[in-house]
Amino acid sequence: MPPFSFELTARCQRGRAGVLHTPHGDLPTPVFAPVGTQATVKAVTPQQLRELGASLVLANTYHLFLRPGSKRVAERGGLHAFMAWERPILTDSGGFQVFSLADRRSVDADGVTFHSHLDGSLHRFTPESVIGVEEDLGADIIMVLDECAEPHDRAYNELALQRTHAWAERSLRARTRDDQALFGIVQGGVFADLRARSAEFIAALGFPGIAIGGLSVGESKAEMLAMLEVVDPLLPDDRPRYLMGVGSPEDLVEGVVRGIDLFDCVLPTRMARNHSALTRRGRLNLRNAAFAEDERPIDPGCDCYTCRTFTRAYLRHLIVAGEMLSATLLSIHNLRCLVSLAHDLRAAVQEGTLDGFAAAFRAGYNKHRMEG
Amino acid sequence: MPPFSFELTARCQRGRAGVLHTPHGDLPTPVFAPVGTQATVKAVTPQQLRELGASLVLANTYHLFLRPGSKRVAERGGLHAFMAWERPILTDSGGFQVFSLADRRSVDADGVTFHSHLDGSLHRFTPESVIGVEEDLGADIIMVLDECAEPHDRAYNELALQRTHAWAERSLRARTRDDQALFGIVQGGVFADLRARSAEFIAALGFPGIAIGGLSVGESKAEMLAMLEVVDPLLPDDRPRYLMGVGSPEDLVEGVVRGIDLFDCVLPTRMARNHSALTRRGRLNLRNAAFAEDERPIDPGCDCYTCRTFTRAYLRHLIVAGEMLSATLLSIHNLRCLVSLAHDLRAAVQEGTLDGFAAAFRAGYNKHRMEG
Repeated sequence: MPPFSFELTARCQRGRAGVLHTPHGDLPTPVFAPVGTQATVKAVTPQQLRELGASLVLANTYHLFLRPGSKRVAERGGLHAFMAWERPILTDSGGFQVFSLADRRSVDADGVTFHSHLDGSLHRFTPESVIGVEEDLGADIIMVLDECAEPHDRAYNELALQRTHAWAERSLRARTRDDQALFGIVQGGVFADLRARSAEFIAALGFPGIAIGGLSVGESKAEMLAMLEVVDPLLPDDRPRYLMGVGSPEDLVEGVVRGIDLFDCVLPTRMARNHSALTRRGRLNLRNAAFAEDERPIDPGCDCYTCRTFTRAYLRHLIVAGEMLSATLLSIHNLRCLVSLAHDLRAAVQEGTLDGFAAAFRAGYNKHRMEG
Repeated sequence: MPPFSFELTARCQRGRAGVLHTPHGDLPTPVFAPVGTQATVKAVTPQQLRELGASLVLANTYHLFLRPGSKRVAERGGLHAFMAWERPILTDSGGFQVFSLADRRSVDADGVTFHSHLDGSLHRFTPESVIGVEEDLGADIIMVLDECAEPHDRAYNELALQRTHAWAERSLRARTRDDQALFGIVQGGVFADLRARSAEFIAALGFPGIAIGGLSVGESKAEMLAMLEVVDPLLPDDRPRYLMGVGSPEDLVEGVVRGIDLFDCVLPTRMARNHSALTRRGRLNLRNAAFAEDERPIDPGCDCYTCRTFTRAYLRHLIVAGEMLSATLLSIHNLRCLVSLAHDLRAAVQEGTLDGFAAAFRAGYNKHRMEG
């Protein structure tokens, strides 16, 4: 078996369950990847990540390229050794971060030139240079450089798609390591015909996995889901599908229902630092005074360290007192919420009950829930 | 056996090894107590505290009285349940914090009136009210209200000592719980005769343990150690001795050599948040660029999670990147440094090698060491 392969082990309607084999272990899918932007999932140790069941972790090429530098990471033995995460790692291409720099970058057919958000220093990414950076970082799954356009701007999306496709081909030619899986990225904004064209083009290149990029960046939820439905029948069944940067509880359910295998999102850790807890019934803002005497865990149905150990009253005290431990404890809970939801979605696919699972989830879920 | 008792199990010169029996377990002494000011040791979970070998944790009565309020903690089942720390807890009396408020408090013979540092609200502590607060919090070891004076001001120390002594007697009469050990506090600034008078007075009251307060508050290290030598022969052998608020590596060694059994200090966690690592050879500022390619752990001789898992290069990256995980990882290391030093001092007492241990420590230690 090559160091990277994907087995589809069950289907339920369009939902999929599988196993991704990587050099750092097997990933049962669907899987949610916590984001470790700067080679750390914020406020959480690798030990805590393992204990909450995380398998795949995402790190950001753009950030690590700037600091501490990908050569320095390579000299430290690569990202797994550097951040002490011996399970699989995925690096993005930096494309999304660079395009978020807006007036601090300029794109041409060959690549993109940008100013660092840290010190204004000038840098350039090409498809080839990004592959070099990602090979230095040494993740199990790496991404091609793509261009993420404003989702409603058709002219820009048409132009960007040409570059994204050309860069995908160049990326494939540039890679030198055979122990990393390089994923292509489908773009096309909210335009069904562009998304279809992109899915067909990227699928034809033979990548071992395919990402769907440029979503959850300003379009409506309905537009995002419509794009998933457009690309689903066009992507090869035997390759994992990765919905980039998406990962609220509702997104996981709706994504799996539409054939997605991999998710990543900063939401759980960012919400944790903003005092919000995710649950399958909705969000709780634990700063709320209503929780000051609430003896319950965040979620009585959750098995994470935080819910096994602490009351809402204590977490609310930490938040009001400005104690950073609250970010750690809420991050553990929020990540566990998504990791266990992905686990249960996998079980529902395997048991043939995905439709019922999704219907029950939708009926119980209120994104704006703030009370107990 | 009463819920609280102390056995002295070995002596080596003036150094002591013992066991404090408490309702939440036995404490081998000498012991270093991490500080959990607001019912949390900053940036560290109770699980991590257990794993690094912490036994006794200190919490601050003043802070918890103001927020979340001692009645609220009592209603949550007391401090052990509230903060999920099932090992022994010690609460101070709030005296030190109140006297640190300077122009925001006024002392009279009966107690002290002060404005909260949080919102300016007016409060009053008396010896009796503080016992009530500490009984609500429910720690295993509680402290009498005392008055901590500027250490070089003789007239103030004489006046404060009268109040501290009268308050000690009132505190003993006020207590109602028999599952908490109430410790008296010796004061007297840097004045040997006042310290001796205070040690004799407090010792005569029959407290199950005796604290030495008002040190490490502006006097020199030599003055502090001289005061320990004054009180050592005057304190009862069969009671634990607690040096309040003191706990650098060098202080632990010099304190144990002078008969101290308990220590607490914010230093390890505060230093951790300021990027400094404590070792038995001195301190390292891990922000230093010299560490950017340093593959060693903080201390090759340390067995903590941080040293077992991460390089200096990675920790330096976290610090430069502003990642809060650095505070957690350095806190774990710094606390382990003091917990294991107390453990080894105990072993040296038991083995009759304390003098040699202290001499070797002093020879290898340079407080200002900053290089690798």
